[in-house]
Amino acid sequence: MADAVTMDKIVSLCRRRGFVFPSSEIYGGLGSTYDYGHYGVLTKNNIRGRWLQAMVQERDDIVLIDSAIILHPRVWEASGHVEGFTDPLVDCRTCKLRFREDQLDTAQCGRKPSKHPGETPDCDLTEARQFNLMFQTTVGPVEEAGSKAFLRPETAQGIFINFKNVLQLARRQPPFGIAQTGKSFRNEITPGNFLFRVREFEQMEMEFFVPPAEAEEWYRYWIEARYDWYLRYGLRRAHLRVREHGPEERSHYSQGTSDIEYEYPIGWSELEGVANRGDYDLTRHTEFSGTKLEFVGPEGTARYVPYVIEPAVSIERIFVAMMVDAYDEEEVAGRERTVLRLHPAIAPVKAAVLPLIAKDSGMVEKARALYEQLRQSEVVEYDEGGAIGRRYRRQDEIGTPFAFTIDEQTLEDDTVTIRERDSLAQERLSIGQVGAKLDDELSKPWTTPKTD
Amino acid sequence: MADAVTMDKIVSLCRRRGFVFPSSEIYGGLGSTYDYGHYGVLTKNNIRGRWLQAMVQERDDIVLIDSAIILHPRVWEASGHVEGFTDPLVDCRTCKLRFREDQLDTAQCGRKPSKHPGETPDCDLTEARQFNLMFQTTVGPVEEAGSKAFLRPETAQGIFINFKNVLQLARRQPPFGIAQTGKSFRNEITPGNFLFRVREFEQMEMEFFVPPAEAEEWYRYWIEARYDWYLRYGLRRAHLRVREHGPEERSHYSQGTSDIEYEYPIGWSELEGVANRGDYDLTRHTEFSGTKLEFVGPEGTARYVPYVIEPAVSIERIFVAMMVDAYDEEEVAGRERTVLRLHPAIAPVKAAVLPLIAKDSGMVEKARALYEQLRQSEVVEYDEGGAIGRRYRRQDEIGTPFAFTIDEQTLEDDTVTIRERDSLAQERLSIGQVGAKLDDELSKPWTTPKTD
Repeated sequence: MADAVTMDKIVSLCRRRGFVFPSSEIYGGLGSTYDYGHYGVLTKNNIRGRWLQAMVQERDDIVLIDSAIILHPRVWEASGHVEGFTDPLVDCRTCKLRFREDQLDTAQCGRKPSKHPGETPDCDLTEARQFNLMFQTTVGPVEEAGSKAFLRPETAQGIFINFKNVLQLARRQPPFGIAQTGKSFRNEITPGNFLFRVREFEQMEMEFFVPPAEAEEWYRYWIEARYDWYLRYGLRRAHLRVREHGPEERSHYSQGTSDIEYEYPIGWSELEGVANRGDYDLTRHTEFSGTKLEFVGPEGTARYVPYVIEPAVSIERIFVAMMVDAYDEEEVAGRERTVLRLHPAIAPVKAAVLPLIAKDSGMVEKARALYEQLRQSEVVEYDEGGAIGRRYRRQDEIGTPFAFTIDEQTLEDDTVTIRERDSLAQERLSIGQVGAKLDDELSKPWTTPKTD
Repeated sequence: MADAVTMDKIVSLCRRRGFVFPSSEIYGGLGSTYDYGHYGVLTKNNIRGRWLQAMVQERDDIVLIDSAIILHPRVWEASGHVEGFTDPLVDCRTCKLRFREDQLDTAQCGRKPSKHPGETPDCDLTEARQFNLMFQTTVGPVEEAGSKAFLRPETAQGIFINFKNVLQLARRQPPFGIAQTGKSFRNEITPGNFLFRVREFEQMEMEFFVPPAEAEEWYRYWIEARYDWYLRYGLRRAHLRVREHGPEERSHYSQGTSDIEYEYPIGWSELEGVANRGDYDLTRHTEFSGTKLEFVGPEGTARYVPYVIEPAVSIERIFVAMMVDAYDEEEVAGRERTVLRLHPAIAPVKAAVLPLIAKDSGMVEKARALYEQLRQSEVVEYDEGGAIGRRYRRQDEIGTPFAFTIDEQTLEDDTVTIRERDSLAQERLSIGQVGAKLDDELSKPWTTPKTD
């Protein structure tokens, strides 16, 4: 890569090509909220699909659930969120701005942006007060005490409260896992950096219940398994690292936490967290609900509260990491091209079918027929709009790994050109072989073509 | 079917087999809120997948979006929801219960349940007041006026506010559609009937933008297309009907609305609505946002505000309808069996692989190998727990269309038994043919085996 990939370039490509738009844009936007366009939805679906494939479909020991977003409010008392899921906020009485106390060092004073809050005589900061990050709402027609509810800040608790159901009805015994994907909500004071920190996001969490003696081993196992998953889908090793939290950095219940970090344009930051949560959650829900959440072996051979290993990530952070790693600009034959070198499994569109000349009804007919055939099994695009070079560039920018072009020669001998996104290699093959060729290419192992 | 399918039977099966649990059950539940277990998630994923296949993948003219749940609050002023998305509520000063004014005829008096509210001298009903069904919340750290926000009560508005983005960036011109699936939230006063009316639900909506002169034609088209989709996935014609709303029943902006109704155990009720919304939404958002939402043809050849045809449904209502239509009890060789005759595309598990004798390591080995092979492409289950009859019944109850059993003969000649869920027909085939056989069976057109 000639130049460093900046977040601005990613944001710009995402908007230009219809991956991601600022939400409510016609109303002036709503800070740090985004809507996904067609290619964004397809890409997210691919990320989620591959996560589910690795976490559930390819395994015997993990089942799915999908719990409600608005759970019983007691759930969040038991989990510790009502009391402890807070950020310390301070206000400046002079400039009326509000800051996170733990981020004063990087914040800008409202009067003198070159200084941090508290650094000028004008600054008049209040004491910090704890602000809870859960969104509140009211269920039912009146605001009675009992009707206050929260939007879930994580999907994990919906899993813990269903532990007994899964144990009984899915006939599982540790080690086994429960996986869930879905929206979570956090009333972040300082959202930002595009999709990196947003107020609503889609989590993919899996809680793996194990005998306490095996917890450390499974903790290591899941760090490695998740790290390998990122390599498998094209993130570069040089942009990934595992960072283990020190004891002072961990949540009070954690027996060990590691972040799989990615080198975003904003620097190394958490992509996915893997935590050994011990027996904290099941114990707390036992205490608060009066329902014993434990494992009892056949004929009472064992009885214990499982430890929980949790790999947790949001689709948004994976999406950004994959876009950053895929983004490339290069000069080809004197012309600049932007190309998204996404893993073919993640790319929103797998192939484009292009008639060289849109006014040639013979080419159009053959191209349409090929398109109709291919889209039975894959997401493919048909495009007849504009010069062929422009159409190639459009597909490059959305990361389409293959393009099939129907030209004069096709009308003579039924062969088409296949153009490969990364190498730009072109070769001809018989139109009848295109389906098998595409299947074959898409099922091959793939390694990122970029050098670091 | 011997007996009518009741909602209780469906609820009971869903709980027993881990499709759907009452949410927050260990905390005493949270009225009319549900969590989905493994088979429930898989079934919902199949319903969503088939909707997307028919609405997006098999078509050229519809693209996807995924908009935020918390949109700019002005969106809901423009849409009319702030003012008009209300139910009229009355309170009884005597029994302290609260009722929907338009449902007094079917409600029960708190003192005399055999009577309706207002029918006894004791009843002391207040005037009706309008209660807005949108969930409110607050974005940001303080409850300032501008920070009030709503959880979306429908996904449609997220589509309308992105109309211009799609027009420009996806280079579309009417007729074209934008589809979205995702959670919506309504603070229902009287939720109930299992998943039929819940406070959070997953919508699948598509807004189809057309030249005004073609609106009526497309309205008819989409009613038929959606009706046919239900037949394709196994709902019985006798349980489906289209009911057109009379002028007095329609929303003020509607040029025509039809419900595709299903005969639920609670009676004929809306499954999906198809509405001709006219130019109401785009016009209102133009007015409130100051951004012109209209279509301008190439070189100004045309300029108009498209009309919108909207097929809108929730996964929950489809899920219940499909479960009801699939549920069957029958006597086979003197024993009762419960079977879910789900369409194979909707069934959560496509096949079970069962070693006849779990203690026979030869059978287990062959069964495991077959299972590992099949699950590369389909959701299949391996089960060695309990007598074979019990394992078959378990698979019948979750609607698994095929079971492959490995027995003594398999060890001799590498053939297995295939058992068909509906007919209970069993035949032997070579273990090497199982994959192709399953593919073949799953791609056949399928018709419901039940008679009405």
